[in-house]
Amino acid sequence: MTPTDLAHAARAASRRVQSLPSHSRQAALHAMAAALSERRQEILDANALDMVEAEKQVATGRMSSALAARLKLTPEKLDVLAEGLGALAEQEEPLGRVLRRSFLADGLELMQETVALGVVLVIFESRPDVLPQLAGLALRSGNGLLLKGGREAIHSNRILHEVLVSAIEPDLPGGLFGLVETREEVGTLLSLDGCIDLVVPRGSGEMVRSIQAGTRIPVLGHADGICHVYVDKEASREKAEAIVVDAKTDYPSACNAMETLLLHEEYAAAQDLLQALEGAGVRLFGGPRAAQRYGLDPAASLSHEYGDLAVCVEIVDGVDEAIEHIHTHGSGHTECVVTESEGTATRFLSGVDSACVFHNASTRFADGFRFGLGAEVGISTARIHARGPVGVDGLLTTRWRLTGQGDTVGPFSRGERQFFHSRS
Amino acid sequence: MTPTDLAHAARAASRRVQSLPSHSRQAALHAMAAALSERRQEILDANALDMVEAEKQVATGRMSSALAARLKLTPEKLDVLAEGLGALAEQEEPLGRVLRRSFLADGLELMQETVALGVVLVIFESRPDVLPQLAGLALRSGNGLLLKGGREAIHSNRILHEVLVSAIEPDLPGGLFGLVETREEVGTLLSLDGCIDLVVPRGSGEMVRSIQAGTRIPVLGHADGICHVYVDKEASREKAEAIVVDAKTDYPSACNAMETLLLHEEYAAAQDLLQALEGAGVRLFGGPRAAQRYGLDPAASLSHEYGDLAVCVEIVDGVDEAIEHIHTHGSGHTECVVTESEGTATRFLSGVDSACVFHNASTRFADGFRFGLGAEVGISTARIHARGPVGVDGLLTTRWRLTGQGDTVGPFSRGERQFFHSRS
Repeated sequence: MTPTDLAHAARAASRRVQSLPSHSRQAALHAMAAALSERRQEILDANALDMVEAEKQVATGRMSSALAARLKLTPEKLDVLAEGLGALAEQEEPLGRVLRRSFLADGLELMQETVALGVVLVIFESRPDVLPQLAGLALRSGNGLLLKGGREAIHSNRILHEVLVSAIEPDLPGGLFGLVETREEVGTLLSLDGCIDLVVPRGSGEMVRSIQAGTRIPVLGHADGICHVYVDKEASREKAEAIVVDAKTDYPSACNAMETLLLHEEYAAAQDLLQALEGAGVRLFGGPRAAQRYGLDPAASLSHEYGDLAVCVEIVDGVDEAIEHIHTHGSGHTECVVTESEGTATRFLSGVDSACVFHNASTRFADGFRFGLGAEVGISTARIHARGPVGVDGLLTTRWRLTGQGDTVGPFSRGERQFFHSRS
Repeated sequence: MTPTDLAHAARAASRRVQSLPSHSRQAALHAMAAALSERRQEILDANALDMVEAEKQVATGRMSSALAARLKLTPEKLDVLAEGLGALAEQEEPLGRVLRRSFLADGLELMQETVALGVVLVIFESRPDVLPQLAGLALRSGNGLLLKGGREAIHSNRILHEVLVSAIEPDLPGGLFGLVETREEVGTLLSLDGCIDLVVPRGSGEMVRSIQAGTRIPVLGHADGICHVYVDKEASREKAEAIVVDAKTDYPSACNAMETLLLHEEYAAAQDLLQALEGAGVRLFGGPRAAQRYGLDPAASLSHEYGDLAVCVEIVDGVDEAIEHIHTHGSGHTECVVTESEGTATRFLSGVDSACVFHNASTRFADGFRFGLGAEVGISTARIHARGPVGVDGLLTTRWRLTGQGDTVGPFSRGERQFFHSRS
């Protein structure tokens, strides 16, 4: 099938699947979970083919061993995936939730209800685990799914796709999950803005930017995670040190790791805080004022995602300048204020225009699992549709349903009937 | 100022306005309303300049008199606009509504709250009334607004913009409302996808399509309104006739008017229904089956928006074929089923993938005012962000706010603390 055929098939299948009762979609999720267990050996064999190639790349220095580790599937990982699909089946039904209900007039009832978004294209790298997770989320919420994995996981993605499709095909319409493998196919899909409703790129900032630049389909994701921690003059020393060290060192390459530390110019324990970071192995770069005051190497940019044990430090006059710095140099992902002053905290939380704003808590909490959203579709720094960590809600839209008794607008236009718009 | 400067100014002003308390934004709305009354004569004088030009165009047949009438401002129209601004001030506060609240763990509270979307570009034709309405909506919800009106209303739009900006500038940051006048300026704005969050085109389908094709900014709107009414074999004769005639004739050029009538092949009163339409002055075209059975002129297309007293009629075997026809030929706007069978109604309402699905009610009810949403931003047939008639909710997004006590993720990773995710 051509990519265009796959997209149309996903749309048609999604329309049929979203009107199936909840129990049919639940049964299909359980069937997918069972298939991952029953066909475990085939999956591991295919993954072994990818690993042979990956190990060659690691040996010649063209792939990091961390990346190779993320590529590897194990019986344990497959068990976790199967459990995740089972848990998804038992979660609250996402479709048909009534968000708003009112009577427009006697006998004329309006409801706004959740429905499936439609067709979602996910472009992911390396980790083949993403495929069953997203297939589960898409099926639970009645969406068609088009998948493009990385070349390095081609055998793993093929077998996982085949296993999941075979598991649901006896009962559900075919074509709900489509798999493409080449750049050309993705290029075609990215041009189908009439047929694909959302693109979710899961990979490097460069990959996300190139997709954003090349499509008119809305993109859910983030190219950059330039997260700030602002340590106010009224910060607790202990909290500041704990949060700053955790935000930078817990997982430095994560998008929610701190990249810039903003210090109030009167924060008394600044030297100790910087020493604590250095003690944790963090290399410090300075913005103009911090470089001068603390003798730091000057930062090449105040808008840099280090993704490593390195951080930019800068001094600000107070919370307003911190907010201004964040708006000028940030990426709208996650920012934290450390202060004991409620007034300063409120000013920061109301004034910072980012997806996540935290008070006295590490930026590393910005995550779908930690937020309690269940499986995570992605983290979005766009303002449209879904923002911040996004769970299954990002795969939904709404529909208006009006039930009347033969009602027409004529009597309302002529003043014979009146709208009363009662919320019920 | 260049269009890029206007966009950046609108972003900066929006960030300041959205963190102002509700009463400041309310006071500014009342000031805008007062200015429309106090400076009424200046506004009417400017409008008169546009009307002189419009009347020349009408005389030479280059403008319809309906369009000229929509262009004209009157003291009464200005009173209605001022009242609308006052009513908006008194509406429920849209910002800071808590949509979700939970404790992730002891002392770690998460909230998802509504915030302003950011900067919205509205491109509108003819009616200058749109300008104060949208300025009011934007201010109420803390959004920056960029406006591009039609050439035919240039004097009216300029004075309205100046009056509103002068009214709010003593108290609010300047630059919240920007006005551009040329195609080139709009072209620049449509390329600023990093700085403008949403485009709302209000005009012809052709205009909407050209904007959708020329920008990566999300577009809220609809290019086409190809609405269907399906009359089932179990339809009530009276309801079918009332709904079909109202949906076609109440306002034939509206986007929510019926364009295609689908008849169940066994619907007994089909001839009477078609006669009722003809009696109301509607010209009938037929799809292949209806053209043959009823001797109608064949429709050139089954996906046509007549926007006039004309309709396409087609025969289908039942509700499933009706749904299929709508998915193939519709525009995802509004569709209605007329039936006394609850089973058929449910099948139609669940199976049709459109923004609005109605049972026994005219498609003409698909409208923000009739839905009780207050002022209408537009009607969207896109699936992302907002769908169907969109009120102030379409100008909002959300932000996650986390409040801790110095919390870090380390203890959770090491198993020393557990998430419990209690909803409160």
